[in-house]
Amino acid sequence: MTRIRFQRSLEDLKENLLVMAGLAEQAIQRAIEAYRVRDLSICDLVNRSEVAINRLEREIDQAALDLLAMEQPMAIDLRFILAVIKINADLERVGDSAKSISDRVRNMEQMASVDLPVDIPRMASLAAEMVRKTLQSFIEADAEMARSILTMDDAVDAMNRAAYKALTKVMAEESHLAPQALNALMICRSLERVADHATNIAEDVIFWVQGADVRHHKTPTGGRDAQAAR
Amino acid sequence: MTRIRFQRSLEDLKENLLVMAGLAEQAIQRAIEAYRVRDLSICDLVNRSEVAINRLEREIDQAALDLLAMEQPMAIDLRFILAVIKINADLERVGDSAKSISDRVRNMEQMASVDLPVDIPRMASLAAEMVRKTLQSFIEADAEMARSILTMDDAVDAMNRAAYKALTKVMAEESHLAPQALNALMICRSLERVADHATNIAEDVIFWVQGADVRHHKTPTGGRDAQAAR
Repeated sequence: MTRIRFQRSLEDLKENLLVMAGLAEQAIQRAIEAYRVRDLSICDLVNRSEVAINRLEREIDQAALDLLAMEQPMAIDLRFILAVIKINADLERVGDSAKSISDRVRNMEQMASVDLPVDIPRMASLAAEMVRKTLQSFIEADAEMARSILTMDDAVDAMNRAAYKALTKVMAEESHLAPQALNALMICRSLERVADHATNIAEDVIFWVQGADVRHHKTPTGGRDAQAAR
Repeated sequence: MTRIRFQRSLEDLKENLLVMAGLAEQAIQRAIEAYRVRDLSICDLVNRSEVAINRLEREIDQAALDLLAMEQPMAIDLRFILAVIKINADLERVGDSAKSISDRVRNMEQMASVDLPVDIPRMASLAAEMVRKTLQSFIEADAEMARSILTMDDAVDAMNRAAYKALTKVMAEESHLAPQALNALMICRSLERVADHATNIAEDVIFWVQGADVRHHKTPTGGRDAQAAR
């Protein structure tokens, strides 16, 4: 393989990862739309997305492996390919989270629609934005942008904690609403996981761009956030 | 690096991954022991394990990357190194699940101890066994053993579904027990995730040993299980 063909293969890999990210983000948005309008036909679309995402995950992994096996990539290309493999795995799990949310929506179908003290669409929109932004930081090789995602994760965590508190209060005080509150709580947890996956991806982008390993550097004095807020 | 030194580095990598797996399995067992005897000092141990696991994850990733960068591993070694990178990521998330369980136990501290219709220690012991067995299948390069783990995952899923049903019934009928039931439900979910990570690892072992990608091959006719039961 010539250098030019190798570079083109790297571009193809990146392109496919972006398609994968688009599918994952869309799956989350669809799952939340299904929740918002209680439409099970949208749940079917989420299931179909998950199948497509799983297939694409395998293709990307195989392409990455082929590139590693056939070439002797230089350090920077090697880091890129490894980042692709890791980001790919996280995107597949974003698809799984979308599926979990959609399963909850199906579960809620037989229940009365009630008002709950939680703004799930807002939380979902933040989580989906994180996925979108991490991939943008990946395209632009922008470590600073990737770092800003670590701060967004703290916001989603805070929303999830607030939702947990409000929803368990509903369960305790209005037990007839417990099934709906529990489903909402599980959906919040899935969204919090989506944000975690976006955070993993952001860390992989920083690793690729800077060669620095920023994972698990959250210190009690708020080191990570302080760094992100620079 | 001579071939012999390279082989020794691969052995070191494997050795460190086994230490990582041991820490992850222990973290789950400790978290469940904390749940069983309601002892917060064990939760502190789980937190310390998580820090150790995160540190070791970085070391293993760096060692794997160095081997890829400095050598031009042959196909079989390349597959091995990639399997290590993926298994490493899953083990780190097993540590995260242990931490989640331990957080739930802390949350339950202020609540009255009650009997719930769920056998969490049994579910935990199955999940921990899955982690242990996947790593054994990795040491012995035994794809058949790895396949048997896919069946165990179905058992844990079934236990999780049964727990969900029983615990939501408690929430609906005995609302004063709802907080405890919810915590138990979240712990079951964390254990189900541990089983999922063990399943991911088993798939990576099969990928490494056989070069076949078994991921997402679960068919409606039970194809995956039929295969595992051969």
